[in-house]
Amino acid sequence: MSGQMKGQTSDDAQLAACAGQLLRDLRAARPLVQSITNFVSMDIAANALLAVGASPAMVHAPEETGEFTPRVDALVVNVGTLSKDSAHAMEQAATTARVHGRPWLLDPVAAGALTFRDETIQRLLRHRPSIIRGNASEIMAVARAAGLTRNEAAPRGVDSAHTTQEAEALAVRLARHCFCAIVATGAVDVVTDGERVLRVANGSPLMPRVTALGCSMSAVMGAYLAVAADPFEAAFGATALYGVAGELAAAKAQGPGSLRVAFLDTLYSIAPEDVANNLRMG
Amino acid sequence: MSGQMKGQTSDDAQLAACAGQLLRDLRAARPLVQSITNFVSMDIAANALLAVGASPAMVHAPEETGEFTPRVDALVVNVGTLSKDSAHAMEQAATTARVHGRPWLLDPVAAGALTFRDETIQRLLRHRPSIIRGNASEIMAVARAAGLTRNEAAPRGVDSAHTTQEAEALAVRLARHCFCAIVATGAVDVVTDGERVLRVANGSPLMPRVTALGCSMSAVMGAYLAVAADPFEAAFGATALYGVAGELAAAKAQGPGSLRVAFLDTLYSIAPEDVANNLRMG
Amino acid sequence: MSGQMKGQTSDDAQLAACAGQLLRDLRAARPLVQSITNFVSMDIAANALLAVGASPAMVHAPEETGEFTPRVDALVVNVGTLSKDSAHAMEQAATTARVHGRPWLLDPVAAGALTFRDETIQRLLRHRPSIIRGNASEIMAVARAAGLTRNEAAPRGVDSAHTTQEAEALAVRLARHCFCAIVATGAVDVVTDGERVLRVANGSPLMPRVTALGCSMSAVMGAYLAVAADPFEAAFGATALYGVAGELAAAKAQGPGSLRVAFLDTLYSIAPEDVANNLRMG
Repeated sequence: MSGQMKGQTSDDAQLAACAGQLLRDLRAARPLVQSITNFVSMDIAANALLAVGASPAMVHAPEETGEFTPRVDALVVNVGTLSKDSAHAMEQAATTARVHGRPWLLDPVAAGALTFRDETIQRLLRHRPSIIRGNASEIMAVARAAGLTRNEAAPRGVDSAHTTQEAEALAVRLARHCFCAIVATGAVDVVTDGERVLRVANGSPLMPRVTALGCSMSAVMGAYLAVAADPFEAAFGATALYGVAGELAAAKAQGPGSLRVAFLDTLYSIAPEDVANNLRMG
Repeated sequence: MSGQMKGQTSDDAQLAACAGQLLRDLRAARPLVQSITNFVSMDIAANALLAVGASPAMVHAPEETGEFTPRVDALVVNVGTLSKDSAHAMEQAATTARVHGRPWLLDPVAAGALTFRDETIQRLLRHRPSIIRGNASEIMAVARAAGLTRNEAAPRGVDSAHTTQEAEALAVRLARHCFCAIVATGAVDVVTDGERVLRVANGSPLMPRVTALGCSMSAVMGAYLAVAADPFEAAFGATALYGVAGELAAAKAQGPGSLRVAFLDTLYSIAPEDVANNLRMG
Repeated sequence: MSGQMKGQTSDDAQLAACAGQLLRDLRAARPLVQSITNFVSMDIAANALLAVGASPAMVHAPEETGEFTPRVDALVVNVGTLSKDSAHAMEQAATTARVHGRPWLLDPVAAGALTFRDETIQRLLRHRPSIIRGNASEIMAVARAAGLTRNEAAPRGVDSAHTTQEAEALAVRLARHCFCAIVATGAVDVVTDGERVLRVANGSPLMPRVTALGCSMSAVMGAYLAVAADPFEAAFGATALYGVAGELAAAKAQGPGSLRVAFLDTLYSIAPEDVANNLRMG
């Protein structure tokens, strides 16, 4: 599909081709993605899904999710601005997704920082997410909540206090423990299903300066769940897209305001070949 | 007011002049528009109202709306991210608007997709909206909820599964049934009060790629209710503005991110003559 | 630090240097700012905090704020889209901030317009905010709620019906009454702690056309509370930054859409010297 890149191994070239093909498939399928997400990210998550070619649905009320979730292609649950009510809605949607065999992704925003949040995340884990995506500190905190470590180095807020290199070993163990794919995003993004580990080195240091860009990545990763062969492939495909699109957009941006604009434009206009040709495995 | 456009009939020229004059009146009046809308659209709805020259108020709590609604120029109710609490607030606001003679607009987002939503929409219809604005599928679903058809072709999510041509006949019947104006937006926008039917052919296929742009159109249409002679004229004026502004903005955009930016700029800077001179009746 | 500006007095030059230094300190400290704000402003408030170099946390649930607020550098409470639940969360967070000695800022959006809102604001005032920031009408309404005047000229909605010149005398009395700093924003921004009064004449008439830009200013002012010597200095520093950055951004903007983008870019890229050199005291 894509020619082999300079300096790429044949494995890398195959991965690059796969990332390109997944984007092609996503646009053809136009999957319906339900997103129960925080108030900060609703706008950018819906815009990212539309830009990439998916159909977003921000249905989040317990009154509606029981009827809605069975018919979506994927569900994304993001605990960003958690409350008692939204925690209830998230658990109900996750249960419904599991019962009806819909794939779902958990974005454990600020895991490790607050008791109520960690308890909610622990309950959500019982419903078997297909992917857990967070920054390095969040993934380490989920591993801690799952009893895999006693490391107490929690971040103060929502920004990561760790690198993904520090999180990688725990991410692999968490993937095995939860039978799911794990994505820890950072300067280098780590994608693992407990057996395989991929590292994507694209992106830009300007990306964390745009609020909820990571949340929107989770939403788009949900769309990939609808077209990929398995959660690991979906996790890799969306990580590759975000890394490459973020890098291309940052090259045109003067700061976080114009990066957000250029990023949505890029999600819309990027060709599958662009993803394949610009991918840099770490 | 506006010179006759090439190929326009004199009726079309009159309509174009009317659309221009309504924008002029709106900017002079600076109407106060209360918007009870979904979490995805709050930002763009408020920004669109400010850009066009109206004053937005996103007051939505039952504790406040009883006191606030009687003094606004128009109310807009959008069921996008519905919940039990927001449905209650919407009904209270709609009742207050009716009792105090304030015009109000209903945006039935995702009508036909979910039981709780359709029941809420049915209750809201009792309070006599001045305008109902939605995409083709939503308008058809409201007609079904009102008992005008048994067609069950509901969309899966929030995106339309029908063209406005398919919805037009039902839109006319719904307008007669509800004694209000109906706007079905799509590639060609249909505006009707049950007697008259206008079709606006402006716009851009990029517009549905910006989330909540339709919701923001409903908010701006609320502002037109405050200055137009009747709901039909308000519906037409806002439809004309959105079609022309969207088309002009899309000509400058590289994708949905820059379209949103250019669109808000255009709402702010567009001259009444620009609306009149670029309008294309379908 | 900064050379003396043309026509500046030595006092003004000192103020300009101070405003520049505060921005430098803020970026070095990267303060964690909790923001309980309205749904319209969450996105732009978080983006402004990230752009300027602070760490935003939009934690707002009563289930979490008791545990979270004691460890933040500052708290910002904005009553924009008030409800019974959010009023409860705001009071709890303000109590916690007071008890734990965390500085906090009150943004009394639409004060004077609605009974429930004014009662909530009165209860919040008991918890001693360090700064109250609003437009002229809002500051006058808070002064009225505090019993300092009987003037009943309330605005209808969220937009100011007064100039800051009209509000200045009341702002000074309110600062003395509440033992805090007051900022009344408008064409000329007034900053006072009841003893000192500063007027910042930067900014652009296009700024009020961007929704929640004032709310985002309150969020950023919260970040300044974490690094300034006292609330008055924090109030002045953030007011200077917003005036200068808004003016520079407006010079590049074609309307409110591009102003928002350029403004976030400017918050990110503006040098402390740019703030100092472009500041115009009124």
